[in-house]
This record gives sequence, C-alpha cells and structure tokens, in this order.
Amino acid sequence: MKAIGADKSFNLEDGNLFYEFAVDTPKPEQYELLVRVETISVNPVDTKIRKTEVEQAPRILGFDAVGVVEAVGDGVSHFDIGDEVFYSGSPKYQGSNQSYQIVDERLVAKKPKNISNVDAASLPLTGLTAYETLFDVFKISFNPEENKGKSILIINGAGGVGSIATQIAKHYGLHVITTASREETHQWSKDMGADIVLNHKNDLAEEFKKYEISEVDYIFCTFDTDMYYEKMIELVKPRGMIATIVAFKNKQDLNLLKPKSITFTHEFMSSRPIHETEDMQIHRDYLTDISEKIEAGIYKPTVNEVVDGLTVETLYDAHVKLENQSMIGKLVIKL
Amino acid sequence: MKAIGADKSFNLEDGNLFYEFAVDTPKPEQYELLVRVETISVNPVDTKIRKTEVEQAPRILGFDAVGVVEAVGDGVSHFDIGDEVFYSGSPKYQGSNQSYQIVDERLVAKKPKNISNVDAASLPLTGLTAYETLFDVFKISFNPEENKGKSILIINGAGGVGSIATQIAKHYGLHVITTASREETHQWSKDMGADIVLNHKNDLAEEFKKYEISEVDYIFCTFDTDMYYEKMIELVKPRGMIATIVAFKNKQDLNLLKPKSITFTHEFMSSRPIHETEDMQIHRDYLTDISEKIEAGIYKPTVNEVVDGLTVETLYDAHVKLENQSMIGKLVIKL
Repeated sequence: MKAIGADKSFNLEDGNLFYEFAVDTPKPEQYELLVRVETISVNPVDTKIRKTEVEQAPRILGFDAVGVVEAVGDGVSHFDIGDEVFYSGSPKYQGSNQSYQIVDERLVAKKPKNISNVDAASLPLTGLTAYETLFDVFKISFNPEENKGKSILIINGAGGVGSIATQIAKHYGLHVITTASREETHQWSKDMGADIVLNHKNDLAEEFKKYEISEVDYIFCTFDTDMYYEKMIELVKPRGMIATIVAFKNKQDLNLLKPKSITFTHEFMSSRPIHETEDMQIHRDYLTDISEKIEAGIYKPTVNEVVDGLTVETLYDAHVKLENQSMIGKLVIKL
Repeated sequence: MKAIGADKSFNLEDGNLFYEFAVDTPKPEQYELLVRVETISVNPVDTKIRKTEVEQAPRILGFDAVGVVEAVGDGVSHFDIGDEVFYSGSPKYQGSNQSYQIVDERLVAKKPKNISNVDAASLPLTGLTAYETLFDVFKISFNPEENKGKSILIINGAGGVGSIATQIAKHYGLHVITTASREETHQWSKDMGADIVLNHKNDLAEEFKKYEISEVDYIFCTFDTDMYYEKMIELVKPRGMIATIVAFKNKQDLNLLKPKSITFTHEFMSSRPIHETEDMQIHRDYLTDISEKIEAGIYKPTVNEVVDGLTVETLYDAHVKLENQSMIGKLVIKL
C-alpha cells in the first residue's frame, strides 16, 4: 500500500522532502481497526510535527481521516468490517497520509450518514479539541440551559478549531464572541454562529468597550498565545478560565493569573491517546456526539478547500497553506 | 479605638515600624457590619502585604478575625447586633489588627458554637483558600462519594493552609498525600488526616515510587512554587490540575503544561472581595460550611501557638515567626 512520509524534519524553505513509498498493510491487534483511508484533512499541528525530529523514519504525518473498516483486532467491540468511520487518531501510530491506517477503536466513531467524506474529514481533530476545551477544561454543562448567561471569547474564530468551537459553544448555550479581521473571515465566523465578531486588528479591550461586552467567563486562544497572554488576563472575569492550543515562544509571568485567580490550561488533543489514559474512549464519545449533531443539522462541516488526490505535491502545498496562517476553515484532501 | 499599623512598607531587618494609634470607630453602611475584634490570626499574606507600598497611611494589616457584631448597615440581612462571627475580610477595608473593624456581611459567618475564639480565629483565611481551591478550582464534588478514587498531593501539609486543606480533602472523599520533613510536622499532618506523608527533603518522584503512588489528580502547592513547578507537572495525571497560593519568583515555561493538558491556577482568596464579584457571598457559604463541620466534630482547629495581647511587639514577633516559614498550623493573637 502507498504512504507519504519524510525521513527527517524539514522547513518549507528546505524544499519538498516528502516522498511516496510502499509499505506492507499492517494487521490490527486487540482494540485496533485497519481502516482504508479515503479522505483526510491537514491541520496546523501536522506542520508543527513536520519540523520536529523524526524518531523512526520514514514518518507518516496526518491526523484526521475518513474511511472504511477493513479488518478488526480481537478486542474490538464497537465496529464491524465495512463501517464508515472518522477519527483523528493518535501520535503513537503512523498518521493518516497513507492508504491504510491502524487506529485504536476508542478514538473512532461512525461517520455522520448525511454528509460526504470530504465534509466529515473536516471535523475530528478540531471537534475533539473544541469538545475537550469546552467540556473537560472549562467544564461547561452538557445541558445548554445551565450554560445560559456564560460567555466565551474565541480568538481567531474563522480558523479550523475556531469554526467548530463557535458552533459547539453556541449550541450548548454560551454567548459566543469571536475575533476575525478580513471581511470574509468576519462573515465566515458569523456563519458559524458567533454572536459578535470583533476585529483583532484593533485592541480587544477597545473592541469590548465598543460592543459593550464586560469580562467573559472563558477565553479560548487559537492564535499566537504570547501576543494575547496579558490581554486575555485583562478580558477574563475574576476566577475565569483561559485555554490555548498554541504553544508559547517565550516564558511567561504566571503571577499575572493571581489577582483574578485565573485558571490557565494548555489544551492538547493528543494528551489522552499519547498517555493511553483509562478514559481515552471519551474521544469516541465526543466524535459520536459530533456525528449525531451533524445528522440532526445542528453542526455543519467547516471545509473551505478541497484538494483532489493525495500526492507528495498536494501534501506539500497543503502544508504551505496551513503555515501561511490565513486559512479559513479546513483544507481536505481526497485520496 | 485602638489600631496597629504602619505608614510605609518595611522589611523585618528595618526594625519594627508598626505603631499603635487611635482612630474613630467607623459606622457601617449598607451591607457592612461593625465588629468588635476579640481574636485574630496572622497569615503569611500579612507579611507579604507588609512589604508592599502603602497606598493610604497608616495601613492596618490583618485578615482573620473573631468578634462580636456591634452595629449593622441598612442592607444587612444575615446578622444581628451581638452575633459572634468569624471572617477573613477583604483587602478593600482596613485589616483586623484593630479593636473595631468594618466587614462586608457577604464575607462573614457565625462562629462555631463549640470552640473558643482562639480556635475559631485559625480557620477563615486558610479554610476559604482551601475551599476555593478544592471546589472552585479543582471542582471536586460536594458529594464525597463522587470524589472517591481521586487523589490530591498537598505540598507542605503542616502549614496553615495545608492543615485545613488536608481535613477538607479527606472529609470530601479524596485520597490525601501531603509532604513534611521534620518528625513533628510529619505527625501534625497525619493528625490532620493525611493518608500518606511524604518527606519533601527527598525527591518527590522517588517518594511516589517508595509509597507506590501513581500520578495524582490534583496538586495543591502551598510552598515555593518555582521549586516545585516542573516536579508537579511530572507528578500530576494527564489532564490533571495544579494550583498554587505562592507567587513565583521567576517566569515559567507554560508549554510544559501541554503534553498532559495540565490546568494551572494561581488561587487567591481575595480575588472575589477585591473585585466584589456577584458571587462573593460564597465566602459566607464556605465559612458556614466550615462552622457546621466544626460543630459536627468533622474538622478541628489548626491553632499551634497562642499569643496574649495584640501589641506592636507581639505583632512584629508574629511576623518574624511567619516569615521564618517553619510555622506549624496557625498563630493566633487574643486582643
């Protein structure tokens, strides 16, 4: 079977070091599924991992995948051969940039029946990141009524995570404020359900005044945490919560959290799969909820660009686009 | 009436800059109580504030107080003249190192009936800090059954906050691991209800191995956060929570929180009173719960040293002892 990988870390300026190679199709064991990958999406984290040291070459990148179960391990109880599934997987396995992939069934759910593979591929990693941030970190209620009156600021509302996080937060009863700057990202974020879209070219405290927003309960940062660290502390309520998914470039002063007793979390969607926590099946639960909400017409996919054919070139081009940081919604590649 | 204060910030080496002076007894307004202060306790935070700039001289320090309500504002609904109360108060008012003090009724509860003023004075600030950390930050359940199987590490279990936090965590169903080093602090922490007391002179990861402790759900740091920052990240579970009440000396790398998606909070008991949050009456609720648990024999006071008479000298001596950082439990002064 075919895979695309690289033997060492590389920057885009180094040229395209991805190459295509053949590997034996692996056999699933215990809780594992073998999935024939049909569609993938590319995420910012793929570009970050590409630049980290390769432990075992060649390394195959890729999280999100949609495909069909081709074989199952002995311990598998939730899936059968032929099931259409979607997932974001685990860094402990080779990624989804290949035609067949092994994935742990605890990280997988059935694909929503009413949407295409392309649409489904846009959802797992960003959806899981948003679910973990909202439910595990901020501990918002699964009962939307109990979240009424609470507010969230999502920095970079039109990005991949921002787009789905906006929909989830809105559905679960939060007042959702996002940021964007261009006309098209502003409109995109509105379409995702944002109540208010601030212009992040302006000072956000000024934007809060302009829209008569008082401090918010939660802030979810999906862009340049260093730049927003002190501003978020200014804009969150006393005893409020801040989460980021973007690593810092610099050390920070944690004492700034003290006057308001602020809680800060570095959300990382792979923490459960990497540590194989006892509760890692929560990824299946969250993906199942996403699937049901999609089938009920509550959430919509966040695809903004579709590429035909996974090749060394299309993958490299996707990485270029993602690193550009101007991506609206998600980029999906059909195998 | 008599008060003890200082006109400027000072270090202990500067000598004793506290002095006694007379002030008019203030009149309570709206939600305020005027309390005749009978007993106080001294906390590490008093010594820290003593070293910060004085905004309006003379500054009267002191949080914890036990006393009798002498007058009430028009909006007061929970207290009558003559009620015996205990509280930790707010930095927005002058402190408890005086014979009469104004305090907001939302921060006050009735003193436990079955213990002395001395014993009661040991509880408010440390109790509130522990309640906020356990219930607001870690969000443990008020139903002990739901906390079963969860574990907490309390660094410096024999300190003022550690002593009451141990009792509360134990009562609410957590498995409580503390640290101490001297024989007497080890025994004190055991007496407070610790299941296991580690020796913090040794590497805590080694101590975890020795006692066959796996990673814990929660870590509460009440001593030298810089020293324990990386160690706590090592010892907490994936998606675990860390809180501290001790300010950092240095900036820290927040990316270290990422691999396990760790949540970090700088707990600060004064954040609600300072910001006069809508929910600041939760301090009354927490103190009421503490009072009831004391009356039911569930918690016990944490007094370890009693001083007779609040004078310029006894207050200075108390600050010396607190800054020494070898304090076991609490130091209380009878006016």
